[in-house]
Amino acid sequence: MLELGGEALVLTHDAMAEGVHFLPGQDQADIAWKLVSSNLSDLAAKGTDPLGVLLGYQFGADDARFLAGLEEVLAHYGVPLLGGDTIGATGAQVLGLTALGRATHRPVPSRSGAQAGDTVWITGPVGAAMLGFEALRDGTGADSLAFRRPRALLAEGEALAPAVTAMMDISDGLLLDASRMARASGISFAIDSTAVPIAVPEHRRAEALRWGEDYQLLFTLPAGAEPPVTAFRVGQAIPSAAAPILLDGQPQREDSGLGYEHR
Amino acid sequence: MLELGGEALVLTHDAMAEGVHFLPGQDQADIAWKLVSSNLSDLAAKGTDPLGVLLGYQFGADDARFLAGLEEVLAHYGVPLLGGDTIGATGAQVLGLTALGRATHRPVPSRSGAQAGDTVWITGPVGAAMLGFEALRDGTGADSLAFRRPRALLAEGEALAPAVTAMMDISDGLLLDASRMARASGISFAIDSTAVPIAVPEHRRAEALRWGEDYQLLFTLPAGAEPPVTAFRVGQAIPSAAAPILLDGQPQREDSGLGYEHR
Repeated sequence: MLELGGEALVLTHDAMAEGVHFLPGQDQADIAWKLVSSNLSDLAAKGTDPLGVLLGYQFGADDARFLAGLEEVLAHYGVPLLGGDTIGATGAQVLGLTALGRATHRPVPSRSGAQAGDTVWITGPVGAAMLGFEALRDGTGADSLAFRRPRALLAEGEALAPAVTAMMDISDGLLLDASRMARASGISFAIDSTAVPIAVPEHRRAEALRWGEDYQLLFTLPAGAEPPVTAFRVGQAIPSAAAPILLDGQPQREDSGLGYEHR
Repeated sequence: MLELGGEALVLTHDAMAEGVHFLPGQDQADIAWKLVSSNLSDLAAKGTDPLGVLLGYQFGADDARFLAGLEEVLAHYGVPLLGGDTIGATGAQVLGLTALGRATHRPVPSRSGAQAGDTVWITGPVGAAMLGFEALRDGTGADSLAFRRPRALLAEGEALAPAVTAMMDISDGLLLDASRMARASGISFAIDSTAVPIAVPEHRRAEALRWGEDYQLLFTLPAGAEPPVTAFRVGQAIPSAAAPILLDGQPQREDSGLGYEHR
């Protein structure tokens, strides 16, 4: 974050690589969409109105499709491409995007402001991206839109910014990102697994809590406060306990099993 | 460029790839230096005071050396790292850097403002990076600093911004970048090859005029104006002629031989 002319400028940069963040052979238009959405999701979590993006583009399998997807996603969000660079290189395609925006509320929400006694909320279900990924990977023809074309919750983030004590987007899995928020805030979260809305069959609930890329917003509110947008209460902030996350009362080990550490 | 709170924010993004922009096996600290300097040089050409950078970093041959070089170059310029992302991926290392800054003069200098009658200037000699590259490539032990650790001319750019009609940094070669400026301005430049200061033996003058990465500033001034910093007059802007560049009176073909098109 940067102060300029009385405004708070929020900046984010995400890089994505072929074979790590997207499948080789995946539609390049979808890759452009996701690259932009994942960055704008970071801005959404800070209640930030996007001003533009800059792209670092390594030529890849289908540059025309990438450009088409880029134009589509930027038009969707009404965000301009401010600049960037193109390069040719061998090996896996690597893409980078910088997004910047103007904070709509001060202080800018962070992941470190949750306090014991706060309630813990999520804006919507998790697991849809997981199903979409599987459909795409396995070629089943089932709906893969949630994985291919996630939406950044910009309006929700802006509405929430004045109300929350902490906020972040869930890109690496609910439990992992919640543990990061709890740790950054110096507290723990008691999460009720059955309170988490899921977009998958019940027997896959545990996986959905650990799968990322749904880009829902995770936030905390002072006790008794109601969120200004549709959201689901999934737990409570408590004083620092045996682990950052107690799931249905059980401390969760952080070194494995909470989510996608390497994304 | 972006207006924010009464300030003009200038943004630039450069990407670099192993095997294209730097040699495999080159000191990663030098790569960090060049990545930052090349972006800050873009800001210098716009008379912009840097506010910070964001890095997209793909893990490479020596991450500790890269980090050491990054810290060194950021300290050199007094510029903070505002954010970024790290990824692991196979293949050639690809790096991206976004730099942003505050314009110190309005209008912000561009490459499109040169007018017939203007004089054409360069801040210093070209060719030193070429010699440095050769020393490094051939392992001669000769000085390679100019290639490895170019300097962004931030103070010069800021001093020049109120005076120039057009300005850009020379990253791809004097003749190529001058032809871009002439074309963007809708005029031609008559360049006197012997007036160009060179850091190489006389018999390599033609090469030095076509080799990039010295990051000198190229600018135009109204007829009769003197530059506020040390600079060398290399030519004159004339009405659009047979080619964007007349070198010693000879129109230069643009499709080859002016500089490094693919950098």
